[in-house]
Amino acid sequence: MSESLLNHIQRKTILNQEEQGKLLSKIESRTLKKKEHLLKEGDVCNFFCFIEKGCGRIYLINEKGNEQTLQFGIEDWWIVDYMSYSTENPSHFYIQAIENSDVLILHKNDLEQLLKEIPKLERYFRIVLQKSFAASQMRIKFLFTMSAEERYHHFNNSFPEFVQRVPQYMLASYLDFSAEFMSKIRAGKI
Amino acid sequence: MSESLLNHIQRKTILNQEEQGKLLSKIESRTLKKKEHLLKEGDVCNFFCFIEKGCGRIYLINEKGNEQTLQFGIEDWWIVDYMSYSTENPSHFYIQAIENSDVLILHKNDLEQLLKEIPKLERYFRIVLQKSFAASQMRIKFLFTMSAEERYHHFNNSFPEFVQRVPQYMLASYLDFSAEFMSKIRAGKI
Repeated sequence: MSESLLNHIQRKTILNQEEQGKLLSKIESRTLKKKEHLLKEGDVCNFFCFIEKGCGRIYLINEKGNEQTLQFGIEDWWIVDYMSYSTENPSHFYIQAIENSDVLILHKNDLEQLLKEIPKLERYFRIVLQKSFAASQMRIKFLFTMSAEERYHHFNNSFPEFVQRVPQYMLASYLDFSAEFMSKIRAGKI
Repeated sequence: MSESLLNHIQRKTILNQEEQGKLLSKIESRTLKKKEHLLKEGDVCNFFCFIEKGCGRIYLINEKGNEQTLQFGIEDWWIVDYMSYSTENPSHFYIQAIENSDVLILHKNDLEQLLKEIPKLERYFRIVLQKSFAASQMRIKFLFTMSAEERYHHFNNSFPEFVQRVPQYMLASYLDFSAEFMSKIRAGKI
């Protein structure tokens, strides 16, 4: 338990036994059933969530009542509404398990304290966030420059296993096109 | 010189005199003329750029030959192609001054060394990146849920002074609509 998080951290910085113990003492392990929510619109996101096993997503419900997926997360990914976490304002988003999942939760009070006590965690999260932001810059490039069809093929080629794990309607909304368009692409009609 | 960066850092973490000196010794001050580039597509982005005075942007040139602005930066913002910085692969983007600007450059070798020698800088950049990524999550929400007109009014209401500083065609591409649509909105025809 929590091995995967420790391994993920050790790839970026070295925590000693005492630091590992301190971190683990603050971690809450949770098992989520498929479709279970960790956060709903209107809640404050006062935690960081690390996916040990399984798959999750951040989505919103638009004014037409449709779900739109902003971000997926699989093993070794953090999934957080950073704006709500920082400002402590209610979230605009939902965080939901897509598969039965094992996750680790770090609550804000504990995490902020840990960051002060274990400065090496600052390095770890700086690198995690730098990678996330890099991916987000590329994502905006893809949204701006690729057609829906190109976005689908690019995503499919880049993350073939992942595409098998998530429902197609979620992937369609992540790539910002309709489920109907997705069906046509997959049927080879486009 | 560099006062604005030190002030920006001191709002998030406290550097002592020696640490400030170490940091300042690695900083390169540059003056950029309006429209001057700091990075072009195909270059490796091997630096972080902090805007002391002025305004800049990251943009790409799409296959139709049109510029599309991904991100703006004004005073106290860092402007970096994080993917190219991390992977050392050629950038897909351009970084350009929109006004005559004073910027501070931290080269990758120096920055990575500084992060090891001054762990408090990890905290500073972790917070900078957390804010940037939070803004990017909200931006994707706006792109997904707002009409072009709503995006314009939202941006205009949120950053009224900023809207005065940047050419309208850049703002139009940032908000992902055409310059023609922007003219109509501003003329009150929409």
